[in-house]
Amino acid sequence: MKYPSQAVETLIEEFSKLPGIGKKTAQRLALFILKSDKIKASKLASAITHAKETVVYCTSCQNLTDQYQNPCYICISSRRNRNLICIVESPSDVFAIERTGHFNGLYHVLHGHISPLDGIGPDDLKIKELFIRLQTSELLPDTLELIVALSPTVEGETTTLYLTKIIKPLGIKMSRIARGIPIGAELEYADEATITRALEGRIML
Amino acid sequence: MKYPSQAVETLIEEFSKLPGIGKKTAQRLALFILKSDKIKASKLASAITHAKETVVYCTSCQNLTDQYQNPCYICISSRRNRNLICIVESPSDVFAIERTGHFNGLYHVLHGHISPLDGIGPDDLKIKELFIRLQTSELLPDTLELIVALSPTVEGETTTLYLTKIIKPLGIKMSRIARGIPIGAELEYADEATITRALEGRIML
Repeated sequence: MKYPSQAVETLIEEFSKLPGIGKKTAQRLALFILKSDKIKASKLASAITHAKETVVYCTSCQNLTDQYQNPCYICISSRRNRNLICIVESPSDVFAIERTGHFNGLYHVLHGHISPLDGIGPDDLKIKELFIRLQTSELLPDTLELIVALSPTVEGETTTLYLTKIIKPLGIKMSRIARGIPIGAELEYADEATITRALEGRIML
Repeated sequence: MKYPSQAVETLIEEFSKLPGIGKKTAQRLALFILKSDKIKASKLASAITHAKETVVYCTSCQNLTDQYQNPCYICISSRRNRNLICIVESPSDVFAIERTGHFNGLYHVLHGHISPLDGIGPDDLKIKELFIRLQTSELLPDTLELIVALSPTVEGETTTLYLTKIIKPLGIKMSRIARGIPIGAELEYADEATITRALEGRIML
């Protein structure tokens, strides 16, 4: 199939490279862009360029931040509990936890998980940065708590094990978020592994 | 909720203005852009800008085309049947029909349908352009056939009626695409209106 214009074809192709965007959706997005006025379209284009130019990893927590606000606003906030560090896989996990409004510690973003099958080892993640951050911390190790909030997958578990192995010797407390039945779900439809974890992690009333 | 960077927030906002892209998808797209290398991201940005700059409506069929190829490649093709014009609502309908490979006539894109509820009248569509195109055609009116391929909705029917009213007097043959049971669908689950149309449009074997 040929599109009526090379520019349209290129635009559809570029959109379809985005995750979760198939050929049909890419076509719809491209036609929307072509239908909308020039200012609107250029806003999206410049937002992309601008973000790529200004967004960097925070030198402390490795989350995304503006280059002129580094360390990021969470790391420099005086209202956050500096003794609590939550380890997550990606910036979107930080957004998800921040949305709850129930965590006021700091974060550390690993940018992935250990996955030998995909050729991703500890050195490909921000684990060295975490280690240095903890070693150079002005806080006493036994006042720190690391909450590991990785996905309950094989890769997540592997990464958690690795972190435990290298960080526990520093004398830092480590914990991980609970596995159990999600709010709103029916027990009946939960899988065996989740129910087993939920039973193990039961809380006394 | 606050994102760690103004540039990230702007990017997510711009993505979520696209049709069918919610806040969550916009976030995923933005993080993908930030993770991918600079060249890839700038390719998307420049594809948007470039498309907005070069893509125009074809002066003949009103479909999208490059400004340096106007009339479009379909309109100037010597291999197309110039006596057959298919009327569609949008450029994506042209793509859909072209994909079949079973139509070798020309097109005319109306860019919408008549919808009094949304305040869209005949003057907001490319109907005047169609009328002028037919009147100034070097072909004899009775050798022309207009295939109306609009959606079988109230708006599509209204538009079809309006077109019939103004174009029939020119002495041009008009037809519309068949309504019936789509290929692969089960008769059992088809709605009454579709079955009625399928019966009415039956073909002798």
